[in-house]
Amino acid sequence: MADWKHGGFTLPGEAGYEKLTLQLAEKWGADVIRDSDGTKLSDEITKAGYRIYSTVCIIREHNEFALAHPECQQQTFLSTDFVTAAGDTLEIPLLDGYFTEQFEINSTPEAMGYWQVTDRTDGTAVPREKWTYRDGRVLIRGCTKWHRYSVSFLCWRIWEEINMYNHTTNHWTSEHLRQLDPRHPAAWEYLQKWLEDWCEANPQTDVVRLTSLFYNFVWIFGSDARRRTRFSDWASYDFTVSPAALKAFEAEYGYALTAEDFIHGGMLQATHRPPTAHKRDYMDFIQRFVAEKAKALVEIIHRHGKQAYVFYDDSWVGMEPYAPYFRNVGFDGLIKCVFSGFECRLCAGAEVPVHELRFHPYLFPVGLGGLPTFSEGGHPEKDAEDYWMHVRRAIARQPVQRIGLGGYLHLTEGFPEFTEAIERMGIEFRRIKELHEQGKPAELPVKVAVLHVWGSLRPWTLSGHFHETDRNDLIHVNEALSGMPLQVKFISFDDVRRGALADTDVLINAGRAGDAWSGGDEWKAPEIVTEITRFVNEGGSLIGIGEPSAVEGADNRFALSHLLGVDQDRGAYACHGAWEFLAEKKGPFHTDRQALGCTDGIRVINPDTRVLFAKKETPLMTLLKTGKGRAAYLAGFRYSPSAARMLLELIAWLTDTDLSRAGTTDNPETEAAWFPESRTLVVMNISGESEKTTVTWPGGSEKMVLKPRETVFRTV
Amino acid sequence: MADWKHGGFTLPGEAGYEKLTLQLAEKWGADVIRDSDGTKLSDEITKAGYRIYSTVCIIREHNEFALAHPECQQQTFLSTDFVTAAGDTLEIPLLDGYFTEQFEINSTPEAMGYWQVTDRTDGTAVPREKWTYRDGRVLIRGCTKWHRYSVSFLCWRIWEEINMYNHTTNHWTSEHLRQLDPRHPAAWEYLQKWLEDWCEANPQTDVVRLTSLFYNFVWIFGSDARRRTRFSDWASYDFTVSPAALKAFEAEYGYALTAEDFIHGGMLQATHRPPTAHKRDYMDFIQRFVAEKAKALVEIIHRHGKQAYVFYDDSWVGMEPYAPYFRNVGFDGLIKCVFSGFECRLCAGAEVPVHELRFHPYLFPVGLGGLPTFSEGGHPEKDAEDYWMHVRRAIARQPVQRIGLGGYLHLTEGFPEFTEAIERMGIEFRRIKELHEQGKPAELPVKVAVLHVWGSLRPWTLSGHFHETDRNDLIHVNEALSGMPLQVKFISFDDVRRGALADTDVLINAGRAGDAWSGGDEWKAPEIVTEITRFVNEGGSLIGIGEPSAVEGADNRFALSHLLGVDQDRGAYACHGAWEFLAEKKGPFHTDRQALGCTDGIRVINPDTRVLFAKKETPLMTLLKTGKGRAAYLAGFRYSPSAARMLLELIAWLTDTDLSRAGTTDNPETEAAWFPESRTLVVMNISGESEKTTVTWPGGSEKMVLKPRETVFRTV
Repeated sequence: MADWKHGGFTLPGEAGYEKLTLQLAEKWGADVIRDSDGTKLSDEITKAGYRIYSTVCIIREHNEFALAHPECQQQTFLSTDFVTAAGDTLEIPLLDGYFTEQFEINSTPEAMGYWQVTDRTDGTAVPREKWTYRDGRVLIRGCTKWHRYSVSFLCWRIWEEINMYNHTTNHWTSEHLRQLDPRHPAAWEYLQKWLEDWCEANPQTDVVRLTSLFYNFVWIFGSDARRRTRFSDWASYDFTVSPAALKAFEAEYGYALTAEDFIHGGMLQATHRPPTAHKRDYMDFIQRFVAEKAKALVEIIHRHGKQAYVFYDDSWVGMEPYAPYFRNVGFDGLIKCVFSGFECRLCAGAEVPVHELRFHPYLFPVGLGGLPTFSEGGHPEKDAEDYWMHVRRAIARQPVQRIGLGGYLHLTEGFPEFTEAIERMGIEFRRIKELHEQGKPAELPVKVAVLHVWGSLRPWTLSGHFHETDRNDLIHVNEALSGMPLQVKFISFDDVRRGALADTDVLINAGRAGDAWSGGDEWKAPEIVTEITRFVNEGGSLIGIGEPSAVEGADNRFALSHLLGVDQDRGAYACHGAWEFLAEKKGPFHTDRQALGCTDGIRVINPDTRVLFAKKETPLMTLLKTGKGRAAYLAGFRYSPSAARMLLELIAWLTDTDLSRAGTTDNPETEAAWFPESRTLVVMNISGESEKTTVTWPGGSEKMVLKPRETVFRTV
Repeated sequence: MADWKHGGFTLPGEAGYEKLTLQLAEKWGADVIRDSDGTKLSDEITKAGYRIYSTVCIIREHNEFALAHPECQQQTFLSTDFVTAAGDTLEIPLLDGYFTEQFEINSTPEAMGYWQVTDRTDGTAVPREKWTYRDGRVLIRGCTKWHRYSVSFLCWRIWEEINMYNHTTNHWTSEHLRQLDPRHPAAWEYLQKWLEDWCEANPQTDVVRLTSLFYNFVWIFGSDARRRTRFSDWASYDFTVSPAALKAFEAEYGYALTAEDFIHGGMLQATHRPPTAHKRDYMDFIQRFVAEKAKALVEIIHRHGKQAYVFYDDSWVGMEPYAPYFRNVGFDGLIKCVFSGFECRLCAGAEVPVHELRFHPYLFPVGLGGLPTFSEGGHPEKDAEDYWMHVRRAIARQPVQRIGLGGYLHLTEGFPEFTEAIERMGIEFRRIKELHEQGKPAELPVKVAVLHVWGSLRPWTLSGHFHETDRNDLIHVNEALSGMPLQVKFISFDDVRRGALADTDVLINAGRAGDAWSGGDEWKAPEIVTEITRFVNEGGSLIGIGEPSAVEGADNRFALSHLLGVDQDRGAYACHGAWEFLAEKKGPFHTDRQALGCTDGIRVINPDTRVLFAKKETPLMTLLKTGKGRAAYLAGFRYSPSAARMLLELIAWLTDTDLSRAGTTDNPETEAAWFPESRTLVVMNISGESEKTTVTWPGGSEKMVLKPRETVFRTV
């Protein structure tokens, strides 16, 4: 039996709290001690026999160089608001409404070559000779009266965004940190040299923990406290841009990108929206650049006998672990901060030797949502256990090698229940990890494919943490799937064209009309609709959630309405009689009406459609058989243990699958994983109450009573 | 003083109930006795000294001729459902799902020339050589597997729809009546002769009441009782079509219409949806044909010394009273059945000498909604009084000359409260009419323009009665406006191009994305947005309700969002920070939060937007000043006296108008109309309770207590 008390745990050490650091390292079974953003380790810690991770944010902490070489700083396109011309001239102040501590106009001739002044009313470009720039303002002459105009312009980003966040949230008062763009040759020269020097100067470091690479996710602050965040997207590429990048792109692709490719009518191109073809090209271009530069850095780190782990958040744009270039970088480990199960699967599935989860809450006074954690009124042990309920079921499905924490260790003083909770989780994590080492958990013979425009580039996640995307049904679906005994893949519309459905039993499409998750204009392609029609008629299963296969502006709104048996009326059915139906008010499997939400305008369009639940005249959940296949429509999906059970039992019903093949329980508040090699069941109580459950596995069945949140390991 | 007890009242007489007929004629002050669909008058009635109306449905009651000349019957295009090809041939039964008592396939070579077989998956036409028709089925060869196909075909309509409705609803068992198409020369010859003969044979008739002309509104029945009505639209033109009409159209317009111009992707073209250019051409073509034929009939009637009144419902398609051809027909009167105020204004504003309202409830056992009226459990007096609350305020604004009833008079026996109520209404109607004759009621100096795609062709109405369109905010707005002291016009987008806003103080746009009332693609025209931007900046007022100026598929959803200060997020704002706001929870005028409903995704986009009400984070009502003008956004609008008062006071606030100029009350459950020539106030209690109110008019103010539903006429 392995040592369940020690190993696979990364502890954030803190200078000045050496005793606490070593005490907790022992209690939590740490084998690694790390520093954190804003903390340093002392010799007493680094020489205590633990492996040492050191955090390096490569593009930050170079203010001296940045101030001496301002042309090496990072940039972005911004657009002014659209301003109405009340006469034939119009003056537009460019940074009006933007946070001027973050942005500085780049009015160099090279940058201004990319500026665009646009008549937004008729969509035409204002010719260069009609506008002039001076002192932060563009003056337009020859305006069409009562048209609206905007200026798209480049600016320098003069405050690194994570530093800006920490200043704002944790009341830091230190110097604002700037960030360098590795695309600038001088910066790149400097950064390589700096890393060489750093490695030389830090012999005690075993692992360089890169946080992360070069380009932060997009986070645009406004000047008005009533709307501090103007735009925030964890996976957008706006902050990678510069005249140099645009020139290199044009040289390679043979066409030039414009400001409008980024500004996109003033709305930018968020990850939640289907990308333009230009954006897809640009993303690939940046991914290759990031991988190439990252590889060079990793080689420096390796040359110094250290390992390179990368943190999968913050400045991670361009290093998608599921993009084709990631595996060539040579990272030794991937670290992901996790609130949820889907984030565990996101990390665990990446092609890299070590997967490490950074648990929440971070050892900070307040959490990401702004509520107290390690401060008065906080219950960090409660938060940690809530997140563990999500993490546990995901890592029971797919293993990770390590877990850990981040932040200021001294903040745990006065929260002894937290330190106890972390100790328990460490032990459970190591036991689950050991089971995986002995053999994989049993899976059902059901292949689930989630279809959206990003496909395998963005498996499991949408953009950001659960609570940032929880209005999207798909993140709830992903969270539910993350702990299920199913083979889950994420496919794009091109994957469907390439025959991905040949290897699929259940196809899921969950999103809102026009978004990246539903698919937007992809649904106008006849070959997609044809292939899915074939798939279902020949025996495949389809689950549509929210506004699946929705085509905006079409009268027949859902492209797959003929398979789902429902369509959405956004006005086009005003004169069409509705099919009368009787809602069954239960399903042929466990159902959870509360999980379904409600989507406006759903209507039955096939008399054979079975309606399980409805809100007045609007169906909430339906079933329909077509040919040899089956389809289900759900008006929405909100994750809960009971909702996840509904989804799992729906999938089993659609595919005629016996759940007990992978171990199952009869109480939705509990879940089981069956490890056939070690003949061990992991039975998990997800609820905060004591729960009775009957566990069934191939060859057996047993009644159990589980304590609140308990994990039972039962070898049979 | 006029005789308030007699005149302007049309009574439905009934043979066999002569005594009752004459008794009620006296009680209700009738000057006219009419027959009804399904009733006859006896000599005792027709010779009692009253003017006599006789109902003539010109295209119906000619079954003998129709059966002898089946090619003279009316037609329509239908489309099959879309059927999936599971192999390379596919057989589609054409009338599957349709009510075969209503339709019969027209497979004459002339008709089949217009049939279309379509691959609905890729939108291509199936060439004629690939399909064959036999015995009600089309066989398609060379299908693309898993594509969906449909057949659009012509069929005869073999059961006149109002007769079909009466059979279904009132359990009639008589022979199914057929209908003739006046476009067929033999039918037209026959109908003229028939009317000549009828006029000869009915010397007692003073007024021929045409019910209505030739083409019924579209009413397509299904075979399944679970969806009896497949499609129903009170203003669509599908039932006017025939090969002859299509040929005449092509000869005149130089291009051919196809089945798809009518079938429109299987959804038909409902009045609630913006019409295609082809549909607009076709409507004009039919309107001219209907007017020409109607004129010929009116001339026959006039030649026999009779008058011709036309009923503005049922077979009225093509005779829109606000189309340019109506006034040339020469009708002597227009009769409109009314539940609501907007219907009164619709009738009262038409260019014709006599406007007559047919009150509801109809003297039938059940009402249009299917609930009992003159039968057990019915309260016809209550229904009549409810409708009167709507009618009274509208006819106080614009006069009509006559009122009346329809149906079986004997059904009133046992409902004495009904006969009393009708007597009271008759007296009040005559008093209001007399005031109008003495001089117009005072109006506020405010010109309101309601903007939608139909403009002045469809003022006041949408399509059908209030209860059939009550999901649309605009019908509630129209109902509210119908009793207000304002100058109201209905304008189209072309009217805006032609400068209609020069003569407008308040512009209203109320609808849902993509519908005819919001405007759909009309909002993509820069000149429309520019003109409205000018209008507001120069001092005009804008009211947007629901999804005003919505452009489907656009990220910036409301084309007028810069004037409204709000936009709608259908997903495109997922990464955009929201403006914090504090809802004021009241307005600078009377407000009614309940009337506002809720529109999904509304968000503030201007920090100066005042939010009066919000549901959680979603604004329900906002105000914004732009330039010299003001705009208001309402998430929805549901008519009630209090809601109407909110709208009136909002208009007054937007335009700085003193309501008392036209007479006003301080209790929203009451309304006043001020007739300056006769110095008379009409004060109306709309509620079923006793109400206190203070009436203010130019030069005076008075407290009053009104009985439930009371009308007070006060000369000051």
